[in-house]
Amino acid sequence: MKNVAVFGAGRIGRIHSTNIAALPGVKLQYVCDPVPAAAGDLAQQLGAQVSTIEAVLADKSIDAVAICSSTDTHSDLITRAAAAGKNIFCEKPVDLSVPRAVACAEAVKAAGVACMIGFQRRFDPTFNDASRRLLAGEIGKPEMLVITSRDPGAPPAEYIKASGGIFRDMLIHDLDVFRWILCADGDEAVWLSATGSVLTDPAIAALGDVDSTAVSIRTKSGRLCQINTSRRAAYGYDQRFEVLGSAGLLQCGNHTPTEVVQWNASGIHADKPEAFFLQRYAAAYKLEMAHFFEALQSGTPFKTTVADGVAAQKLADAAAESCKSGQPVLF
Amino acid sequence: MKNVAVFGAGRIGRIHSTNIAALPGVKLQYVCDPVPAAAGDLAQQLGAQVSTIEAVLADKSIDAVAICSSTDTHSDLITRAAAAGKNIFCEKPVDLSVPRAVACAEAVKAAGVACMIGFQRRFDPTFNDASRRLLAGEIGKPEMLVITSRDPGAPPAEYIKASGGIFRDMLIHDLDVFRWILCADGDEAVWLSATGSVLTDPAIAALGDVDSTAVSIRTKSGRLCQINTSRRAAYGYDQRFEVLGSAGLLQCGNHTPTEVVQWNASGIHADKPEAFFLQRYAAAYKLEMAHFFEALQSGTPFKTTVADGVAAQKLADAAAESCKSGQPVLF
Amino acid sequence: MKNVAVFGAGRIGRIHSTNIAALPGVKLQYVCDPVPAAAGDLAQQLGAQVSTIEAVLADKSIDAVAICSSTDTHSDLITRAAAAGKNIFCEKPVDLSVPRAVACAEAVKAAGVACMIGFQRRFDPTFNDASRRLLAGEIGKPEMLVITSRDPGAPPAEYIKASGGIFRDMLIHDLDVFRWILCADGDEAVWLSATGSVLTDPAIAALGDVDSTAVSIRTKSGRLCQINTSRRAAYGYDQRFEVLGSAGLLQCGNHTPTEVVQWNASGIHADKPEAFFLQRYAAAYKLEMAHFFEALQSGTPFKTTVADGVAAQKLADAAAESCKSGQPVLF
Amino acid sequence: MKNVAVFGAGRIGRIHSTNIAALPGVKLQYVCDPVPAAAGDLAQQLGAQVSTIEAVLADKSIDAVAICSSTDTHSDLITRAAAAGKNIFCEKPVDLSVPRAVACAEAVKAAGVACMIGFQRRFDPTFNDASRRLLAGEIGKPEMLVITSRDPGAPPAEYIKASGGIFRDMLIHDLDVFRWILCADGDEAVWLSATGSVLTDPAIAALGDVDSTAVSIRTKSGRLCQINTSRRAAYGYDQRFEVLGSAGLLQCGNHTPTEVVQWNASGIHADKPEAFFLQRYAAAYKLEMAHFFEALQSGTPFKTTVADGVAAQKLADAAAESCKSGQPVLF
Repeated sequence: MKNVAVFGAGRIGRIHSTNIAALPGVKLQYVCDPVPAAAGDLAQQLGAQVSTIEAVLADKSIDAVAICSSTDTHSDLITRAAAAGKNIFCEKPVDLSVPRAVACAEAVKAAGVACMIGFQRRFDPTFNDASRRLLAGEIGKPEMLVITSRDPGAPPAEYIKASGGIFRDMLIHDLDVFRWILCADGDEAVWLSATGSVLTDPAIAALGDVDSTAVSIRTKSGRLCQINTSRRAAYGYDQRFEVLGSAGLLQCGNHTPTEVVQWNASGIHADKPEAFFLQRYAAAYKLEMAHFFEALQSGTPFKTTVADGVAAQKLADAAAESCKSGQPVLF
Repeated sequence: MKNVAVFGAGRIGRIHSTNIAALPGVKLQYVCDPVPAAAGDLAQQLGAQVSTIEAVLADKSIDAVAICSSTDTHSDLITRAAAAGKNIFCEKPVDLSVPRAVACAEAVKAAGVACMIGFQRRFDPTFNDASRRLLAGEIGKPEMLVITSRDPGAPPAEYIKASGGIFRDMLIHDLDVFRWILCADGDEAVWLSATGSVLTDPAIAALGDVDSTAVSIRTKSGRLCQINTSRRAAYGYDQRFEVLGSAGLLQCGNHTPTEVVQWNASGIHADKPEAFFLQRYAAAYKLEMAHFFEALQSGTPFKTTVADGVAAQKLADAAAESCKSGQPVLF
Repeated sequence: MKNVAVFGAGRIGRIHSTNIAALPGVKLQYVCDPVPAAAGDLAQQLGAQVSTIEAVLADKSIDAVAICSSTDTHSDLITRAAAAGKNIFCEKPVDLSVPRAVACAEAVKAAGVACMIGFQRRFDPTFNDASRRLLAGEIGKPEMLVITSRDPGAPPAEYIKASGGIFRDMLIHDLDVFRWILCADGDEAVWLSATGSVLTDPAIAALGDVDSTAVSIRTKSGRLCQINTSRRAAYGYDQRFEVLGSAGLLQCGNHTPTEVVQWNASGIHADKPEAFFLQRYAAAYKLEMAHFFEALQSGTPFKTTVADGVAAQKLADAAAESCKSGQPVLF
Repeated sequence: MKNVAVFGAGRIGRIHSTNIAALPGVKLQYVCDPVPAAAGDLAQQLGAQVSTIEAVLADKSIDAVAICSSTDTHSDLITRAAAAGKNIFCEKPVDLSVPRAVACAEAVKAAGVACMIGFQRRFDPTFNDASRRLLAGEIGKPEMLVITSRDPGAPPAEYIKASGGIFRDMLIHDLDVFRWILCADGDEAVWLSATGSVLTDPAIAALGDVDSTAVSIRTKSGRLCQINTSRRAAYGYDQRFEVLGSAGLLQCGNHTPTEVVQWNASGIHADKPEAFFLQRYAAAYKLEMAHFFEALQSGTPFKTTVADGVAAQKLADAAAESCKSGQPVLF
């Protein structure tokens, strides 16, 4: 039985806590949150106890911590948890600063603990199946990747202010998908060009951010990737990618709540995609957490390491820089 | 907290037990099965205890029982559980004999307990959404229902021998869908014609059963229903229906494991449907059990009553008779 | 160069004339119609001349006639054209009376002319490809056929009065599809059960007809067919079938005007099917007429003979009788 | 009656000649080709005569010419035809050199003749419907355009050598689509970044060209466009785009030969896209030519003018330059 503490009882903390509590062989022991009521509610609901970060890190019985607190706490908590000898699951990103993210990676390595970063898309049944089939050679060698990634609506200005900007907040997932899908064999980005604009809300411009972006990447071996994102899609959460290979294409579509199709005088109407990430990635979050504990148990490597977190962060920085300067970044 | 016992630790018993154990406000107390090891395994896995039917029925702390044992035990267990004052969830069918099913309905009524029959298709998110939208008037008044219902492969002869035949075993679900979708306003079948043949396995003919059927039904108000079924679909478990209304069509498609589509020199390839009922109806089984306890808690009626079980059984009997005689049955 | 005359300048006559005029090696020489203006317009538009049936039949230079006049003239014109030694293309049906249709078949045979009946669905690229792939063994042996056939709206009472009823007017196409798809190896219907009702317009009931039907057929070898039809589909002309075989399913979908899909807050919206038969079967009508002249040229048999017309008519009669009596018809 | 001459009896010349010959009110008078047999065959097949460019331009009875000859002859023929007072349909591109293309535009203007450039995608029923619906405001204001444009296989090196490179040969269509869809209100590109590589055939690298490209464009108003292309798609000719607007998405799919879907043990299989441009754009070529003559007749502007040809050429030049330098081009 692995004993686990969760740091953060917000939206993502609740998801991970619930999934941890349902895993066989795993016990959700503690929930910690700066807001006591949030921690209390969640703990009670799942049969856990409220605690503090200090107490958790000092508790020898705790095998692993899941860091689900706000982004600006991640690197500090990773470092402290590593020093305390805890295995770590940390929501993306490692840190908005690449140097701090690198320092985390070093701290983890030095402590000899296991640390997994929560890039849940790699655990989405659809995306994961495409990756598996690509690696199995179903479409030959990968050549081009086109990622469409759109949120249903822009978050409040408050959120954006603390987010690190669209590239570090939103595209980091897509940039990780790029690495996962196009660089599985060690290939890597050599040229990246990004542009963006503000089309949904002038408040985003006032914060120095953009809400719509177009990124192109070329790899060492000549593979190409295009990512298009928007903070707003009137039809919901749009999460698709397709990868062209020398022998075909693997295309990942959205998930829908039902398979009902209505035919009437105005056309043929299917469900729009799942509303947002909690719905779309519900299965992915479960599979991700199961993977964390399975890998801990078996001692096998995580599918998404802190190195992946650092690498995606570097690409996000490059994209932000390119978007600002209008010039490509070379690696 | 509702305390619950499950009778039967086979395939469907495991599904229901797992779903019961995961429900908030519900405690899976006991598992009973003629095979002690089966009961023991399941009980241990879910933190329950092994018990006997007699002990469960005598235990005042037990609020409800879930009957998941073999079909031939259903009516006896319903009657005894009702007499013991337990609320009852029973897998379909009530009984292969209509008179015994009717007797069950009467026993339940006399005992004043609640009894729900497990027609899980009514809880399938896709089918249920179609029903909801039909009732909301999205396609006007319903006129025609076409049900396609195919198993991935014929069960062993042993199973078929005890099954009551394809109409009572397999089409009972489709006949319940007919009643649910076309008869929600009190309409009812007045004419039913069935035919069938053996196309997959001569062993089925030797047992006096068929493996492929075509049923047509006309209702009092003139609505039409066609059901086509086969014990074998090479591509998996095919569970679709579409209902034509005066203002359009609602079409329910299969579920698929992923949304990956492969394009290559031989075409565009999507996933085949979920493998069988455990996969296709995984969500339905969860929602069905949640409904059982919510309705118990709130005292509201079940969506699928023992009366529904009896009514579907009568239609199944009529279809079997029509298939045998080659003549329609009038109601 | 084949010289051709068309009898009938109405809706279907215009289609066939236009297609004939565009065929290489074929010359549309004459157009005949009881309404001189109709014949004149069409002839002028296509560079042909107006003539009379008598003159056409007496003209030795005319190789073939296309009978596109009203249904009640078909058998007479077939007989006269055959006697005049003309090769014949005749729109379905041969005749609303089976004996008269049989007489036509005999007249054609006696005269030694070629006679093709216009069951255009057999030339629809989608349906025809399914047939080809079925015959090629792609899904093993055929077992069940489900046909969905719905008009966008009921025709005027005047039309229905002269139509011979829904089975002879509308289902004759579906019954021909049944024969084409399930009986290609000589199998044949042995049991047919039909029911129907009036759901769209009471005027149809007043004429003794129905507007919604459900037909089931069992063949000698045990194959099953279900046909569901309605005179009204709010979403357009619905022409689909699917055939289940021992190794899979071939499913024929509708055609749509475009491949544009709109995603918005209310869902994902595709085109509804083509509006009606002139749109849906535009390609089929062209291919059908090309086939007529190619087969004439090469002396190979037609894909749809007068015998097919007679056979479909017999099934339509049986379905009408079964619907009326409520009893199945045995063959 | 408009009398027309076609210059060029190759693949595209045959298409246009056939479509011209089938138009009411239009007479295909002459076919000219440096290869007499090619001209002769085509002329005979369509009832036209063989002639020479000189004779055609001197023939007062000729109203319009369709230039379907090799790319390097376009600007010369446009200039001469304009000087001769002929209305001009010219296949894309105007010329591989922007200055020469501009000179053509001036020559056409000076001569006061009408000149349409054959960007057939604007006439594709699917693409055109999306454009119409976008302009009708169905998805609010356009924001992002994603174009996927892939050929089934790379052309021979000989072709590529004379093609002007992938940007001028292949992407010119996509760049015209960008202008058509995102710049209909006068918006225009201000930033363009392109990259590319050779992934299909080293012979293409030897010619200084690429076979796979990724282009991003930002417009004055901040709209974004991404174009991904490849000379090879194992599954056929892939021609899709989707445009995101403030209120939704319009997505244009490929066309397929049939609507047959096969379900079997390995999945659900649909047709791959039409094989290549002659199939995919068969309808577009017809509609394009009909538009040319309708606009000539009515005196209304063409949908695709020589100015469009020049503008697309400029973008293609910019993309080629950006791909070579690795730097964006600013407008």
